[in-house]
Amino acid sequence: MMGGDYAPKEAVKGVKLYLENNSHPEIIVCIGDEAQLTPLFEEFQLNGHPNIQIVHASEVIGFNEHPTKALKEKPHSSISIGFHLLASGKIDAFASAGSTGAMMVGTMYALKTVKGVLRPTIPSFLPRLDGSTGLILDVGLNSDCKPEQLNQFAILGSLYAEEMLSKNNPSIGLLNVGEEEGKGNILAQATYPLLKANKHINFQGNIEGRDFFKNKVDVIVCDGFTGNVVLKMAESMYEVAVHRKLEKDEFFGQFHYENYGGTPILGVDKPVIIGHGISNDKAFCNMLVQAAKMGSTHLCQKIEQAFASVSAEA
Amino acid sequence: MMGGDYAPKEAVKGVKLYLENNSHPEIIVCIGDEAQLTPLFEEFQLNGHPNIQIVHASEVIGFNEHPTKALKEKPHSSISIGFHLLASGKIDAFASAGSTGAMMVGTMYALKTVKGVLRPTIPSFLPRLDGSTGLILDVGLNSDCKPEQLNQFAILGSLYAEEMLSKNNPSIGLLNVGEEEGKGNILAQATYPLLKANKHINFQGNIEGRDFFKNKVDVIVCDGFTGNVVLKMAESMYEVAVHRKLEKDEFFGQFHYENYGGTPILGVDKPVIIGHGISNDKAFCNMLVQAAKMGSTHLCQKIEQAFASVSAEA
Repeated sequence: MMGGDYAPKEAVKGVKLYLENNSHPEIIVCIGDEAQLTPLFEEFQLNGHPNIQIVHASEVIGFNEHPTKALKEKPHSSISIGFHLLASGKIDAFASAGSTGAMMVGTMYALKTVKGVLRPTIPSFLPRLDGSTGLILDVGLNSDCKPEQLNQFAILGSLYAEEMLSKNNPSIGLLNVGEEEGKGNILAQATYPLLKANKHINFQGNIEGRDFFKNKVDVIVCDGFTGNVVLKMAESMYEVAVHRKLEKDEFFGQFHYENYGGTPILGVDKPVIIGHGISNDKAFCNMLVQAAKMGSTHLCQKIEQAFASVSAEA
Repeated sequence: MMGGDYAPKEAVKGVKLYLENNSHPEIIVCIGDEAQLTPLFEEFQLNGHPNIQIVHASEVIGFNEHPTKALKEKPHSSISIGFHLLASGKIDAFASAGSTGAMMVGTMYALKTVKGVLRPTIPSFLPRLDGSTGLILDVGLNSDCKPEQLNQFAILGSLYAEEMLSKNNPSIGLLNVGEEEGKGNILAQATYPLLKANKHINFQGNIEGRDFFKNKVDVIVCDGFTGNVVLKMAESMYEVAVHRKLEKDEFFGQFHYENYGGTPILGVDKPVIIGHGISNDKAFCNMLVQAAKMGSTHLCQKIEQAFASVSAEA
């Protein structure tokens, strides 16, 4: 409840929005400073709500703190407590709009990387012109990648698109500078044959920058450097639209961060959602939707099963 | 005159447009099939124009031909003749919307790389929200780069922006995933200190994907893989605009390829402009404007001088 520029008020409003819009909502364990939360729950008539549990956290990790140091020195922060509850099975998913660094480090320390996964990855949704939603990964967790990692991102992205976007046999594209096999930098050239030979995915070939807003494939795979640059460029489309007074345009409107909630970390054994620092109520609500869906679809277990089967073949 | 999907007609119309809009136009040497060109020059009342010279070329290199093979086997193609005229000093700049591959290979075979330049590079203009024009390089010639190359792209881009965009002491940014020094993949991390220490440029630090359409720096430096992906994504903004019926919007309208003419190859000793395959009259006209300006500003000589001075220091 304490993460993000507008916490805890927007977090409380987001919880309310989530509860109002779900006929069978999960139990929401709200971790934060009770003294700040109680009056807000009162203000928004959430006091005593059967789906809300409060867990007191006396500390907060600031955005400028060193993640590893802060997690160590502030065991009573909402992020530290969240990871403790998640790792010990007392909650099924953990979402926060707090320090991204602390969320990343916390994930790596408190959770387990799924057996067989070389490196966890973060995907992002991508709105397209025809109204469909695509997925791109990695968008920043792995700046330098090996072909084997990109090949695994394809499996992780495929499973995520299947469960979270309800895509059947999601199509996968490799971000590249041309359409033909053999194009690209050394990484893309070496990754293409791995994806082509990967029986766990539906690989469709290369995807170019110009295809970003088209519905060519469900999942775009790339290294985290390129993915981060293009994602931030795509996100700036909303800013561009506002500047051109087009924020009401139904295509450009989709680029508003609040519609996506947050970013999951794929390849670890429990659901973690990292939200935007400027999260408002709608963003917090969508983080809860995403966290709940990752839990109810058993995405992490399915990833474990998939990688067990990949390892068995190898 | 024979390059591009709509050649030679749009090429002839482009020449006419250029001559009509320039009070002191250069001599334009039109290389192509005389039998096709003569009736078109007649149709567009350009016959006997004092600024037009026709050089007959009996062959054409198709878009699907292997560049090196085609250049060898078709010495009478407009591209082969163009490079011959350029290398022998009979023309001062060469522009074509023909096979990009043949233009690249022709450049490497017929021209000299400027002494000290590790690898030539191609830049592209970038329209921004405030109406200013920026530059990004490399956008595809060098998929895998070393830090030393990116450092040189900064010098080449700086000179190009100074002469072609009339920027005084152009500011340089490194495309990266965060603002602070130390961020990025191995390449960006190793490039930052080189740019910081480079006395020939005005380095301003890292630039993120979200800053693309802002006027933060004049020149963005990146490897050719990332540059190609983001450029194609930026170019697709025009398609997006058309799809959303916004092509008249003055910002989105700027992304139309015809406004830019073509792409120069920087780091070789003579001006070469490679146009878009779908070039229309306006695109051809702008290619001529660009070629003339690269010639009249003596950009290639200035690049030679700059690299001579860089080498002398080292």
